Amino acid sequence: MFSKILIANRGEIAVRVIRACRELGIETVAVYSEIDEEAVHTQLADCAICIGPARAKDSYLNMKNIISATVLSGAEAIHPGFGFLSENAKFAEMCRECSIEFIGPTPETIGSMGNKSKARELMIAVGIPVIPGSEGAVYDSAEALEAAKVIGFPVMVKASAGGGGRGIRIVREEEEFVHIFETAKAEANGAFGDDTMYIEKFIENPRHIEFQILGDKFGNVIYLGDRDCSIQRRNQKVLEEAPSPIMTKELRKEMGEMAVHAAKAVHYENAGTIEFLLDHDSKFYFMEMNTRIQVEHPITEMITGVDLVKEQLRIAAGEKLSVTQEDIKITGHAIECRINAENTAEGFRPCPGKIEMLVVPGGPGVRIDSAVYQNYVIPPNYDSMIAKVITYGKTREDAMSTMKRALAEFVVKGIHTNIDFQLSILNNKAFTQGKYNTGFIAIEFNL
Amino acid sequence: MFSKILIANRGEIAVRVIRACRELGIETVAVYSEIDEEAVHTQLADCAICIGPARAKDSYLNMKNIISATVLSGAEAIHPGFGFLSENAKFAEMCRECSIEFIGPTPETIGSMGNKSKARELMIAVGIPVIPGSEGAVYDSAEALEAAKVIGFPVMVKASAGGGGRGIRIVREEEEFVHIFETAKAEANGAFGDDTMYIEKFIENPRHIEFQILGDKFGNVIYLGDRDCSIQRRNQKVLEEAPSPIMTKELRKEMGEMAVHAAKAVHYENAGTIEFLLDHDSKFYFMEMNTRIQVEHPITEMITGVDLVKEQLRIAAGEKLSVTQEDIKITGHAIECRINAENTAEGFRPCPGKIEMLVVPGGPGVRIDSAVYQNYVIPPNYDSMIAKVITYGKTREDAMSTMKRALAEFVVKGIHTNIDFQLSILNNKAFTQGKYNTGFIAIEFNL
Repeated sequence: MFSKILIANRGEIAVRVIRACRELGIETVAVYSEIDEEAVHTQLADCAICIGPARAKDSYLNMKNIISATVLSGAEAIHPGFGFLSENAKFAEMCRECSIEFIGPTPETIGSMGNKSKARELMIAVGIPVIPGSEGAVYDSAEALEAAKVIGFPVMVKASAGGGGRGIRIVREEEEFVHIFETAKAEANGAFGDDTMYIEKFIENPRHIEFQILGDKFGNVIYLGDRDCSIQRRNQKVLEEAPSPIMTKELRKEMGEMAVHAAKAVHYENAGTIEFLLDHDSKFYFMEMNTRIQVEHPITEMITGVDLVKEQLRIAAGEKLSVTQEDIKITGHAIECRINAENTAEGFRPCPGKIEMLVVPGGPGVRIDSAVYQNYVIPPNYDSMIAKVITYGKTREDAMSTMKRALAEFVVKGIHTNIDFQLSILNNKAFTQGKYNTGFIAIEFNL
Repeated sequence: MFSKILIANRGEIAVRVIRACRELGIETVAVYSEIDEEAVHTQLADCAICIGPARAKDSYLNMKNIISATVLSGAEAIHPGFGFLSENAKFAEMCRECSIEFIGPTPETIGSMGNKSKARELMIAVGIPVIPGSEGAVYDSAEALEAAKVIGFPVMVKASAGGGGRGIRIVREEEEFVHIFETAKAEANGAFGDDTMYIEKFIENPRHIEFQILGDKFGNVIYLGDRDCSIQRRNQKVLEEAPSPIMTKELRKEMGEMAVHAAKAVHYENAGTIEFLLDHDSKFYFMEMNTRIQVEHPITEMITGVDLVKEQLRIAAGEKLSVTQEDIKITGHAIECRINAENTAEGFRPCPGKIEMLVVPGGPGVRIDSAVYQNYVIPPNYDSMIAKVITYGKTREDAMSTMKRALAEFVVKGIHTNIDFQLSILNNKAFTQGKYNTGFIAIEFNL
C-alpha cells in the first residue's frame, strides 16, 4: 500500500479521499488554490501545497504544478477525485512518465472511453447495445443531417468530448437541424477545445440507470449494483437512489453483467461507472462510461458495505479486489441529495458567500459528506455543491422518511440552498411512487 | 400509532426521540427549562413548553409540570429518555392515572427492577445467577458486617436505590467496614432519599457486558445482542462497543436467553437492558436492569439494523414487536465514544460554556448523535455529555480506524472536551487487542 498520496482536487471529494487514507494509514498531501487556504481539505490533510491562483485553469487544472507538488512532497500516487483532471488521459500519461501512480484507469482506457463516439464504436464492436446513431463522428452539418435522417427525428446532437450537459442538443425537426448542430459544435469547441460531433436517436424521457464497477490489475471486474440518477435538472443530477425503484433481480443481473463485459473490453482498472438509458419497454442502451469515482458513489457504499475509495487505493497499489461478485449483496436502500449553494427562485443560479450558520443533520441512517463549516466563505470559482446528504434504511420508505427529517433539520444561513427544492421532490407523489424518469423535474416542476 | 407525544428530557436523547417521531409522522412536544430556551431539542420539536427554572428539580424532574404540559398540549404519551424521570415508578404511575401512555415498562416493573435488592431477590427466585451477597437488604452496620463476613472480603456495599456510581463502595478489610458502610449509607440518603443497603461479593475487574432487550404488550421478548461497557471511569461509561471483543456465539446465546428469561419474569414491556458482570472464568452474574433506553443504544442499532426508539414507540402504542428473535442478525462492529465537556487535565471536571467553533465528523461509517451547535452555550446545570460519536465497520478494526479518524477531525473550540482522552484509549494496546475490563482506565491511565 502507498505510504503517501496527493489529492488533486478540492471540496467534499478531497475530504472523502483524505478520510479513506486516514483509515488506511496513508499520509495525505492536499493541493489548494490561493482562495482555498481556509478550505476543509487544505486544513484536514497532513500537508497542503498551494498550486496557484483561484482560477481552476491556474490551479486544479494546472498539471505541471500538480505533478511538481507530487514530486516535491514525495507522494507516490495521485487521486484525482471527480471533475478537474480525473478523466484527462494526458494527465494520467504525465503521471506515468513521472512514475507516479494515477489512481484510476490507464491513459489508454481513459482515452478510449472518454471520447464518446470512440467509446460507442468500441461498445458496438463487443456487442453492447447502444442508442441507434451515426456510425462514428460526423464532421459537417451536411453529413450530420444525412445521418439524422437515416436515424429518424427526434435526434440528439452530441459532442464527443462532452460532459456536464454541455455540447448536447435535442433536434426535433429537420428544418432546425443545421442551426442547432452548428450551435452545439461551437459550444463544444469553446468548452472542450474539440468540436467532434455525433448523432444519436433521442429517447424521450428514459430512466438514467448506472452501474458501479470495480476492476483490478489482474483482470477481475465486478459490478456493485445499480443507481437511479433520473432526477436531473438540465442533465445535472440532483438526487440519486440505489437500487432503482424499478429494478428487478433479473434486470440487475443482465445490465450488471453487460457493464462488466463493457469494462473488460477496455481492460478497465479501478472504479468506474457504466451509464445506461432505460426506455419504457425496459430496453437498455449504453450511454457512456465515467472513468472515475462519482459524486453519487456513497449510495452504492451504503447498500453494498464496500468502501469504494479504499478499493480504489488498494487497486492502484496493486492489490487484488477485496471482494468477489458473489460477496456483493444489495441490502436496504439509500438516497443521496446534493445540497448546492444556489438560488432556486432565480433560475438556480450559484450563490457563493459566507455561511453564517450551519447545523448539519445527524442521528441514525444519516451520512454527511461535506467540506464546509460555519463562517466558511464559499468561493465563486468552483462547483456550487456544498454537501451530500445520504440516508440509508431497510426499505425505500425508510430512506425517504429519514431523508425528509434530515433535510428538515439542516440549517444553513447566509446563503441560499436547494434544500427546500429537494424536500419538494421527496414530497412529490410521482417520486414517492418511484414513477419517474429524466423528464421528472421538467414535467413536475416546470423547470 | 400516537399522533402526538411529549418528550420529558433534554439534550441529545430528546433530539434522538424527536428524530424517530419525525420519521414515523408523530408530532412532538418538547419541554424545556428556562436556561434551555436555545437548546436544540427546544428548537427542533413541533412545539415547546417551558416547565420551570434551570434546576432539574424544578423542571425536568418536576412531575406535576410535565404532566400539565402533556395534558395542555394534547400529547397522548410521554417518552422519558434516560436519566431524570425515566426510572421513576411514581411518575409512570402518575401517567397511568392521567391516561397518558408512559413509553417504558409499567410502574410495577420499574418498581421491582429499580430497587436493586428487590431485583436481586426476584432474579434469584427465577434462577438467574447473581453475585453472592446478603439475602436482601441490611439495615444496620452490625447486620451488614455479619453478612460481609459470610460472603468473604472484598465486598461491595451498595445502595438499593443507587445509580451512576453513587452510594457504592468497595470494602477490602473487615476493620474498615463499619466506617465505609456508614459513609455510603449517608451518601445514598442524600442522593436518593433512601438509605436501604445491601452487600455483595466484590468481583475484581470483571467485564461489564449488557444485553439489550425489547418486549411488547403481548409477552414477546427478544434480545438484540450484547454491548461491552467495561471502559469506565469511576463507574461512568466512557466508550462502549458491540459486540464485545470476547463474545462467542455460544456465550451470547446463553446470556441473551438468560436476559430474556429475566425480562419475562417481570413481564417486561418496552426497551430495557440487563447488565451482567463477567468474571475471568467467563462466569456471568446479573448486576442490574435498566428499565429505559440507554445512552449506548446506538451501537446495538448499528449491528442489528433495528431502530430501538421507533420500536419503543410502536410497543407503547400497542403494536407487536416488528422483529422476531430469528430476525436479529449481528452484522459488523460498532463503537460509541461519549464526548463530554470536561477538563481531563483537571480531574475531568465538567467544563460548561460557549462553543466557539464546532465542526463535527462525517463521511462513511460515522453517526453523530448530538444536541449542540456553534455558539451554543452549554449550561452548567446538567450532564456534561455534548455528543456521541458512533462508528460502524465490517470488523472491529474498521470501526476503530473510522473512530480514530472521526475523532481526529472533530473540532470543538471554546470549551475543553475529552476527545483526546478518547483517542488515547483507542491507541492503547490493551484496548486494541480487546483485552480489557472495568479496571482498564484505572490501570492504564492511573485515573
